[in-house]
Formats: sequence, C-alpha cells, structure tokens
Amino acid sequence: MVGLNAIREARSRLAGHITRTRLEASAGFSRMSGHSVYLKPENLQKTGAFKIRGATNHILQIDPALGRRGVIAASSGNHGQAVAHAAARAGYPAVVVVPEGASAVKVAAARGYGAEVIYHGTTSAERAALAGELARERGLTFIHPFDDPWVIAGQGTVGLEILEDLPEVDLVLAPVGGGGLIAGIAVAIKESRPGTLVYGVEPVGGNSMQRSLQAGAIATIEQPRSVADGLLPTRPGEITFELARKYVDGVLTVTDAEIVAAVVTLLERARLVVEPSGAATVAALLSGKVPGSGRRLVAVLSGGNVDLGLLADIIRGRDA
Amino acid sequence: MVGLNAIREARSRLAGHITRTRLEASAGFSRMSGHSVYLKPENLQKTGAFKIRGATNHILQIDPALGRRGVIAASSGNHGQAVAHAAARAGYPAVVVVPEGASAVKVAAARGYGAEVIYHGTTSAERAALAGELARERGLTFIHPFDDPWVIAGQGTVGLEILEDLPEVDLVLAPVGGGGLIAGIAVAIKESRPGTLVYGVEPVGGNSMQRSLQAGAIATIEQPRSVADGLLPTRPGEITFELARKYVDGVLTVTDAEIVAAVVTLLERARLVVEPSGAATVAALLSGKVPGSGRRLVAVLSGGNVDLGLLADIIRGRDA
Repeated sequence: MVGLNAIREARSRLAGHITRTRLEASAGFSRMSGHSVYLKPENLQKTGAFKIRGATNHILQIDPALGRRGVIAASSGNHGQAVAHAAARAGYPAVVVVPEGASAVKVAAARGYGAEVIYHGTTSAERAALAGELARERGLTFIHPFDDPWVIAGQGTVGLEILEDLPEVDLVLAPVGGGGLIAGIAVAIKESRPGTLVYGVEPVGGNSMQRSLQAGAIATIEQPRSVADGLLPTRPGEITFELARKYVDGVLTVTDAEIVAAVVTLLERARLVVEPSGAATVAALLSGKVPGSGRRLVAVLSGGNVDLGLLADIIRGRDA
Repeated sequence: MVGLNAIREARSRLAGHITRTRLEASAGFSRMSGHSVYLKPENLQKTGAFKIRGATNHILQIDPALGRRGVIAASSGNHGQAVAHAAARAGYPAVVVVPEGASAVKVAAARGYGAEVIYHGTTSAERAALAGELARERGLTFIHPFDDPWVIAGQGTVGLEILEDLPEVDLVLAPVGGGGLIAGIAVAIKESRPGTLVYGVEPVGGNSMQRSLQAGAIATIEQPRSVADGLLPTRPGEITFELARKYVDGVLTVTDAEIVAAVVTLLERARLVVEPSGAATVAALLSGKVPGSGRRLVAVLSGGNVDLGLLADIIRGRDA
C-alpha cells in the first residue's frame, strides 16, 4: 500500500521537476455554489496534467542502469505524454503505445519529448498486452497509469500541496479514472487531517469506482462512455480500489451535459482551459451535488489537454 | 508624474484586494522563441484583467465622504468592470458609461458588481463627455482608464511583482492601449533595475504610442482598428506619454493575424484564456520581433475577458 511517507518522499523527489501549482480562490464559483471554493489548476502543470507527478516519481527512483534501457507506457493521453517528458528529463528512452487513430496532437506531443510512438489496436487491453511484451523483450520498465505505488504516491503530492496552502480545508474533490489521483490525494489528506472529506467524481457513463465501492469488490464496465475521455478505464486498479475503500468518503457522478457546462464556465469565469475530465469536479460543484454548504472546498482541475476543435464545438453547443 | 514610491504605496494599499499573480515559466514558449520566457497571467487576476489594480488604487485613496457620493468610469471593457468591482468592495456606488451596443456579457459583469450602467453614444469622446457631466452634476469621482497617477501607480505594481519573482529579468513586454500599464511597469522596472529593457506592444492598426514616441509629441489615430479591442484609444495619455518617453525602450507592433495565432497558442500550450489585447505580447514574441535571444523575458498577459463566441471563431479560423 501507499502511506504518507511515500508521498512525502515523492514531494522531495519531485522538487524542481514539476510546477508547484497554487490554489486559486474563486469568488465567482463560491457565489455560484454556496461553498468557499479554491481551484487546484493542474491544467497549468508541466505537460498540462497532474500525470507528470506520478510518472516522474516512478521514473526517478528506477535504478539508472535499468532506466537507460528505457521505459514504456500504454496510453493515448496525458499519462503517455507525462512518461515521455519524465523519461526525457531523466535521459532515458521512452516508448508510448497508442491506439490506431490516436489524436495527432497528443502523438506529436509525446514525439516532441523524444518518445518512440507505436500505434497498436484499439482497446486498452490490446495496448497493455503489447506494452508488456515489449517490456519483456527489450528490458523496458513498464509505468502503469494508475495502479502503481510510485505513481499513486506522486499524485498524492497534490494533496500535500493543498494542505500546505489551505490547512483548514473541509472538502477535496478530485476526478476518478483508474483512481490514482483520488487514492494519492486521499492518503495525503486523511493521514494528515482525518476530518477533511475527500470525494471522487466520475462520469455517469463510467462510474466503475462508485460501483466497486458500492459492491465492496472491483466492478467492471464493459463499454464506458463519456465526453471525459480520461475517466474511462473499464475498472479501477487493485491498489487504488483498496485505498479508495479505506480513505474516500464517496464518489459523485456527473452527466456529460454537466461536464460540458463546467468546461464553458471555467473558460468564461476562470479563464482556464480545462479538459472535460479535468472539469468533472466543477461539474459536480455547479450542479449542486456536493453535500453541505459554506465548506472550504478544493476542486482539483486535473488537466487541460483538449483538442481545440472539440473546445470550439463545446462553446458552439452552448450557443445552440 | 509617478515615481517608484507611489507604486510601492500602491502595493501596500492593494494587499488583500487583488490576486498576487505568479510568473509561470514556459518551456514551450522558451523553445519557440529562443528566449527564457515567463508569463505574467493577469488574465487570472480578479475581474480577469490588470485594470483592477489601478482602479482599486485610485478608489481606496479617495476621501470616504467623497467616495460615498460615488465614482464613475467611461469604458466598454475591463476598466469599467474594474471600477465597478473596486467601488463595490469599498462600499461606494459606481456608474459605468458604455457605448450603445456594448457587449451584454461585460455589461452584466459590471451590473453584477452593483454598478449603474448607462448606455450612451458610440465613441469614447461621447462617453467621456457624458461621464464628465454626470461627475459634476452628481459629485462623482471620475476614474480615468489610464491618464491618472493613481491608476498608473496601481498598474505599476505588476512591475514590482515581476522584479520580486525574477530579480534578474532582462526584458519585460507589456501591451499598450492608452499606456497606463506600460508606464507603470516602466517606472517600477527602470527605477529599480535600469538595465532591464521594457518594450510595449501595439497592434499595427492602433500604434498611437509608437507614432507619438517617434514624433516626440502625442499623435492621434482617427480610426484605430484591430482585433485587440482593448488597445484602441485614439491617442496615448499626457502622463503616460511622458513616462513612456522617459522610460520605455521601444514599441513593437503586431498584426491581427499574429495576435490571433498567439491567442490560439496560449489556449493550446499554456491552457490559458487570454483576450486578443492580452495576447499581443506573445504575438510579438512568437513572430520573432523581440530583439536578441536567450533573454530572461516576461510577457505580461494583460487580461482574459473574451466573448466565447469570438474565441470559437478564432479557433475555427485557424482550421480554415
């Protein structure tokens, strides 16, 4: 499992490698929600998402002899970019396996950091299988996007930073995909300040963590669907599920319409570009799903890598 | 004139009233420009623009008996919102004179802060005349958008913050409309660290400061035109011109196409919503107009209040 010490170590290891994002108090979102709202803008993080924290924390603790053989990730999105970036900084080669038809922008970003990009299949299972094979054949270190103690500890540094900037925080909201971010944050918060509530947010069409917690065992969704493309693994990880079960107070769900409205409101009121997955927390907040009122509340904006064409469609959709 | 002491006083006066924005180092813009680039994101400032600094600095030093009679601004844009917000915080009434056909979003924002909004005429001269009349009739204090020592000193706090965060800064780029921002920044920087260069940036269709500096006297442009609607006064102010003549190293000009490209690149790479006027500095940087290379350079992003429909058009224009 992952404890507070692992997250503190990650904090030291990451110093100078990541951006120390600051909480932004938001008078507008406070007025709209009835809470006292602070945003944690990980869309302003290096590579545009929190994923750089976990990827860097894993890669920096690899034995250099092993690291020089290279690292590998299976990801069409922010984790792939993060691994490519962290490996480049460490001077290690990186391979990123992406689905056929992956976004040209994201592939270009990974290549821009010097990674070898391999197109393969269409499902995450196919990509993971190839990544596993290549890892064995070439002696590469596989970096899992969420179910990995170093990755979880790295994401948990978000929680430590929140406590540093707002020690009296009442409630933290974070998006849930495979669960790495929520698990890391929950350990950091609950082991430091048990009275603070930690809620996850999932899309209604991809609520595998919510279902797993309700069932008391990992539940699988065959075809998760949502505009929040970073929150669509078919199931949470083994480690992330256990940590969520122990530490997370609940998981809220949001519709695509609520997510899209949150993306627009963030553009207009916070002047921030936040991808749909990253705006799920604000979607929960603005749709009145966060319990209570008047709470000192932090909404984690997990990333800002969104195709600008989609962003224009979202803006236009609002006008329609 | 305005000196360093007035800016230091403004700094103390504004503490707790504005957001202390932080420089964001940008690896991407550094790579693209050949400089070592830091962004000063005043789009994340309260009310979405630096204007709150000057407006608040003026309003907070008014004698309260006078303040309670009210303040007035003539502005269709960020200055009007800033005056409305600063007056509301001080507990003073505010009147904002806007042109007929002013953006509904901006009018709603001023009203949201409790200001009385008066639609009048279409030119800034007509608005200024009415504001002057109302000021006399009702005993209101007129807050000029730029040619006012308190306003200039308030905007100059941007310069002090830059020096605090990056003491070894080589060059600062700021957009120029009426000149309040560039004048304040130039005083702060040149009186603290004379070797640092300070450049203004104007649209080619609204380069009244550049022409004035070249002519050695205030020059007027009858019909300034640019997508950067915050940079279109017909002439610089008397005070701002004198300060610019004394302290500013030069004014660069950018085309609308360069501005639009900068807005898009800021959305995509910096995940920031920056209005065209606010993106002029990055436009100068990315079009290779900033002299030298390898400089520790700060680009001020002056604001982020842009109609989302225009933003969608800008994104789509890029695809076309």
